[in-house]
Amino acid sequence: MKPERLKKAVADIFGAAGMAPAHAQAVAEVLVWADLRGMGSHGVMRVPRYVELLRKGDLNARPAMRTVSETLAAVLFDADRAPGPVAMIHAADAAAAKARQAGIGLALARNTTHTAALGYYTQRLAREGFAALAFAASSPNMAYHGARSAGVSTAPVSLAVPGPGEPLALDMASGVISLGKLMQARRAGTPLAPGSALDPQGNETTDPRAAVLPLPLGGPKGSGLALLVECLCSLLAGNPILAEALEGTPKSRRHYQNGLVVAIEVERFISAATFKVEVQRLAGAIKALSPQPTAEILLPGERGARNARERRDGIALPAPVLKELSELSAGLGVQWPVE
Amino acid sequence: MKPERLKKAVADIFGAAGMAPAHAQAVAEVLVWADLRGMGSHGVMRVPRYVELLRKGDLNARPAMRTVSETLAAVLFDADRAPGPVAMIHAADAAAAKARQAGIGLALARNTTHTAALGYYTQRLAREGFAALAFAASSPNMAYHGARSAGVSTAPVSLAVPGPGEPLALDMASGVISLGKLMQARRAGTPLAPGSALDPQGNETTDPRAAVLPLPLGGPKGSGLALLVECLCSLLAGNPILAEALEGTPKSRRHYQNGLVVAIEVERFISAATFKVEVQRLAGAIKALSPQPTAEILLPGERGARNARERRDGIALPAPVLKELSELSAGLGVQWPVE
Repeated sequence: MKPERLKKAVADIFGAAGMAPAHAQAVAEVLVWADLRGMGSHGVMRVPRYVELLRKGDLNARPAMRTVSETLAAVLFDADRAPGPVAMIHAADAAAAKARQAGIGLALARNTTHTAALGYYTQRLAREGFAALAFAASSPNMAYHGARSAGVSTAPVSLAVPGPGEPLALDMASGVISLGKLMQARRAGTPLAPGSALDPQGNETTDPRAAVLPLPLGGPKGSGLALLVECLCSLLAGNPILAEALEGTPKSRRHYQNGLVVAIEVERFISAATFKVEVQRLAGAIKALSPQPTAEILLPGERGARNARERRDGIALPAPVLKELSELSAGLGVQWPVE
Repeated sequence: MKPERLKKAVADIFGAAGMAPAHAQAVAEVLVWADLRGMGSHGVMRVPRYVELLRKGDLNARPAMRTVSETLAAVLFDADRAPGPVAMIHAADAAAAKARQAGIGLALARNTTHTAALGYYTQRLAREGFAALAFAASSPNMAYHGARSAGVSTAPVSLAVPGPGEPLALDMASGVISLGKLMQARRAGTPLAPGSALDPQGNETTDPRAAVLPLPLGGPKGSGLALLVECLCSLLAGNPILAEALEGTPKSRRHYQNGLVVAIEVERFISAATFKVEVQRLAGAIKALSPQPTAEILLPGERGARNARERRDGIALPAPVLKELSELSAGLGVQWPVE
């Protein structure tokens, strides 16, 4: 399906489910962007979940986002359970506005919902001339190093800088394997690499049917990173997630996330043109390295950008996703487009 | 040797080699801190290398550090080849000063030398009430994912937040294995875990005598992180390291590094007391997880803090390090202490 048509169809669903048109479009934009980049697990297959969160009241279709505290270079705002993309775009724009004033800007978004693809927000900033960094905190879904059960989330980290064409952009989770890939392996029956996951009893397994919990990247590194992400996103914003969930408090039964975005205005330190020339020079030096026999040397974000080019005239969604979305549309009285 | 005595002995060496007393003490403080925390590879075993860099003129005993550009919340300064610890303490203090004004503060340190233990600077900030993040960029010593040779450095990343006692503090390199551990394995003849390192021809090896180049943590994640660290520390500061080295320019024959420190003043977003209570609550929930049979559940920084407590009355340095340091002292006309 053509990306623009898919965006409109998804926005129509969200609009019918109660979101304001601008919010529905923003969420559709971020989800379709993930499909374009080849991150289907963060794409429109999430639409039914978003609608479910809306119906449960965990996601607020008409949020009243408000600033909680503000400094010269930082802002903490409460997203009032806004759709994650709406809250995180607001955070990216707020961090950029602060950075234009102060050189660096920080936005803390409290009480968001599913963040979607974190890389969207850093790449948006990189295209506007900022070096950007973002973290997102959510509930425990990854083993803490040395533990038999979930202690932290697969907390994503994203970094991006302006490039001569596409930004150099990293978007990584702190686990060895993502939950999405775990589910893919389960469906395909492909054994996992050793050290990837635990079974429900907390034992390491390579059996994709038994694996339920990703292990942290590099053991204590990945789980330490995820723990610090919780401290920075959630504790600083006064909205803990992990401790609530691990203690099983009533609060933890509802879905909520927190996010953090930092923007640094490149031009304040070096001319934007020089910076891009140096990024290109560095990229060239890396691409010129001698590759392993079966490998291609890729820059951070390069595969995603290539996917997006290949898919700009059409995104092939899996049949079950298409079926679910067209049924969801019908249920909401919205027309799902015929390709 | 008692830490204070070791600090004085090391400071005496640096003083005799030409450093101002305050700088000699700062460098000694940071190196001995690493030995206390159990990071011998970043400790006083580096003293001879620092003296060598001084003699070659790559490290400046009397640097004239100067601000290159400044915004409300950020500062870029040229460290004039100052000892890494002198430059990075300056960066941490500068980031803190900006954060006290603006809520968040950024310091970019250009033209430093060996950064030493990056965690020192973030923990220093955490003890002063800041959430802190730091990166350091240096020359290529790690394989880029998919390449047969070094493309990036094992770029360290450090994050720390105030805790009720010690900070929660992560200090991680972006490689599977550090160069220090690679050397240890070589000396001990211990085979490496698969996927840790390449041999000089660029082939993966578990033979510790053949291994020379660490592989990046999580493949493209680790090398992508290291590449973005170079962009943030070096390209933003107008002082590229990797491209110079990969192109083999004359500049790359000299030793230099760049660093970045971000400080966020916790109190501007949440009361410092509440924040520490929540860190303690989170730490408690993590420590209460059911452990793997042979594992202990440790928090980021916990092992280092434990080491420091155990060693506060005496650090046992390896005999070859002691011998080298006492010979170096003698050569500089300084008395090395008898234990």
